[in-house]
Amino acid sequence: MTDIAAQIAQIGRQARQASALLSRVSTDLKNRALGTMAEALLANQALLIAENSRDLDQARRNGLSPAMLDRLTLTEATIQGMARGLAEVAALPDPVGRVLGLSQRPNGLVVGRMRIPLGVIGIIYESRPNVTVDAAALCLKSGNAVILRGGSEAIHSNRTLAAILQQVLRELAIPEQAIQLIPITDREAIHALLQLEEFIDVIIPRGGEELIRAVVRDSKIPVIKHYKGICHTFVDETADFAKAVKICLNAKTQRPGVCNAMETLLVHEAVAPAFLPVVAEALGKAGVVLRGCERTRAILPQAEAATEEDWGREYLALILAVRVVRDLDEAIAHIERYSSLHTEAIVTEHYERAQRFLREVNSSAVLVNASTRFNDGFELGLGAEIGISTTKLHAFGPMGLEELTTTKFIIYGNGQVRT
Amino acid sequence: MTDIAAQIAQIGRQARQASALLSRVSTDLKNRALGTMAEALLANQALLIAENSRDLDQARRNGLSPAMLDRLTLTEATIQGMARGLAEVAALPDPVGRVLGLSQRPNGLVVGRMRIPLGVIGIIYESRPNVTVDAAALCLKSGNAVILRGGSEAIHSNRTLAAILQQVLRELAIPEQAIQLIPITDREAIHALLQLEEFIDVIIPRGGEELIRAVVRDSKIPVIKHYKGICHTFVDETADFAKAVKICLNAKTQRPGVCNAMETLLVHEAVAPAFLPVVAEALGKAGVVLRGCERTRAILPQAEAATEEDWGREYLALILAVRVVRDLDEAIAHIERYSSLHTEAIVTEHYERAQRFLREVNSSAVLVNASTRFNDGFELGLGAEIGISTTKLHAFGPMGLEELTTTKFIIYGNGQVRT
Repeated sequence: MTDIAAQIAQIGRQARQASALLSRVSTDLKNRALGTMAEALLANQALLIAENSRDLDQARRNGLSPAMLDRLTLTEATIQGMARGLAEVAALPDPVGRVLGLSQRPNGLVVGRMRIPLGVIGIIYESRPNVTVDAAALCLKSGNAVILRGGSEAIHSNRTLAAILQQVLRELAIPEQAIQLIPITDREAIHALLQLEEFIDVIIPRGGEELIRAVVRDSKIPVIKHYKGICHTFVDETADFAKAVKICLNAKTQRPGVCNAMETLLVHEAVAPAFLPVVAEALGKAGVVLRGCERTRAILPQAEAATEEDWGREYLALILAVRVVRDLDEAIAHIERYSSLHTEAIVTEHYERAQRFLREVNSSAVLVNASTRFNDGFELGLGAEIGISTTKLHAFGPMGLEELTTTKFIIYGNGQVRT
Repeated sequence: MTDIAAQIAQIGRQARQASALLSRVSTDLKNRALGTMAEALLANQALLIAENSRDLDQARRNGLSPAMLDRLTLTEATIQGMARGLAEVAALPDPVGRVLGLSQRPNGLVVGRMRIPLGVIGIIYESRPNVTVDAAALCLKSGNAVILRGGSEAIHSNRTLAAILQQVLRELAIPEQAIQLIPITDREAIHALLQLEEFIDVIIPRGGEELIRAVVRDSKIPVIKHYKGICHTFVDETADFAKAVKICLNAKTQRPGVCNAMETLLVHEAVAPAFLPVVAEALGKAGVVLRGCERTRAILPQAEAATEEDWGREYLALILAVRVVRDLDEAIAHIERYSSLHTEAIVTEHYERAQRFLREVNSSAVLVNASTRFNDGFELGLGAEIGISTTKLHAFGPMGLEELTTTKFIIYGNGQVRT
């Protein structure tokens, strides 16, 4: 075993030990820790900004893009945002210990399920240092030990953040190994982490598709993931045009670089001649480039010609693929073929088509008459989000505190035996 | 790609196609199919017994143990049992389409979760042909396509069973590829199956630890599994002796070869001198051999000496490890160290110790004053069981119909966009 592998294994062992104790820490104490952490971040703003500037200097020398530099930067405002985030997690209900549906069996056994933490969670992420604080807060609140592996470009910021959080755990006599940051930037550390099936229950990677595929390939531990978001909006023949234009504009342009932005617009052939010019004008004003099928281009000659590669493509930019379809069946068939199971919306005033779309499209979120941008933990009422899953096992869609737990069966008897 | 790999990939592709259609089949039609399958099994008893006898002849030539032969044998009674099982699954509520907790967000969006099938499930199992029918029934009812890979020793029985089930699907115009049996006994078929992450959502192996470990090592698809059941019973100082003896006897001897049988008995030191002779007499009469710690042997000189290997050992036989512990803390510490997270029980009349045991022991089922043998899908009220999970992701404990589903978010809007 290499030195790095040994060091990572030690981190894993410590996390497992901490998790056994952490699952018994009271809600009050966890909330107190979160509140104290918020205060500690605010009290250490100067230190955090100084350490962050070391990362930024290095990043500039390495020629990181302005967008990447922006995501890496800590300011008083972002630190205050992190502190607010901690307070919000403290205010959420604690899922641990909640008992679901106790009921009595014919032999008198009383059977229910109790929520318990998953155990140890590994988070692998890229440049944004706020993930360090958000993920630590959600794992702590849900009773899980966390091992954080941020991007090497944020190492000074992340180390300082983790040290501040751990100091609070020590002060409150919560096992400080409940929150550990891997201090090694060597990529071997990730490989070593992904082998620790004995100590880690689940890996959640957050970042680009390439990072996530590399993690899945290498991991012996179950990975909860989403590769990409290829979100569709289908405008039905009965759509209210005003709603449809507003929804399409929002879904495509409100934040085009995120996974719940719309990438493909499907339009019912009966309304394509009337609707496409209207929506094209609104999208065009917002700077969106259209790539259309042949039937689209017959109506909108200004659209570029879409090729097979444009269906199911995640642009993450002000580009939109547009296709005219015969009916709801063809829309659903297109979605089934090209969707990444992330988010799909229908705009319709037709009762049965709305119900069919909700029933038959099995993506992680399915909407009627609303923007795809709503597929998000906060927006859907989970209170917070540690990530999103587009695979169906364990969690499907945004993951909040409850998705960081599992349930065990609890059984109250009075001497029952099996016959 | 070899011929076998190509053939298995074709089975996977067909299953994926069938699953998209199957998720929309009505509850009525699924129940009708299950009922018709029960009739078809009863109508084909003679054929099934004839095909099964080919397996049995081969098994005898291969020198299979009497226990294995017993598990492989189909009789009129076992076929009637399978038919009853189909009727029972038909009678269970359909989890698909159930909507959990619709609620309104401040912006007027109405958000809920709807249960949907996982998709395609692969089951890998050993000699018992009834698994073919049970697993197919549970997957069909929960809207999942299933790929079955039974043991080679049961190939004639399984082929005949699968053909009967598929014939019913055809008659009712349900995609017959919803239930597929891999007809190839070559082990390469399992390897090829485990590579089909594109087509299969989850693999559930059922069998001995060696089979399961081999599947986990080889699989690119998530595996829901349990390796073994090392179940503990802790008899507290306040235990009612009559209950405790009855529970220990049942947990150890009612069916010693199964995963929820007790393997280790922990006894509080304060009652060990009084309790151990009583329970030893009852267990001794039932043919149980005891392996005790030193303190146990001071009370029960007839017990064999336990070594470190006896703690955390799955005997699956009439052997029981016995240890005297100082208190509840030492009992919980022993369980944390040696348990396989399957099932643990406490026998106590002390309120707070019962509550602490239920809260602090995080195995898939935790019982107070009842036999470990109750950790079973039927007994806990799931109606049926496709397997049991001792890992915490997705399902923990017995898996019924609901555990073969996931949820998607459904969102009813009236024009909402994100700001």
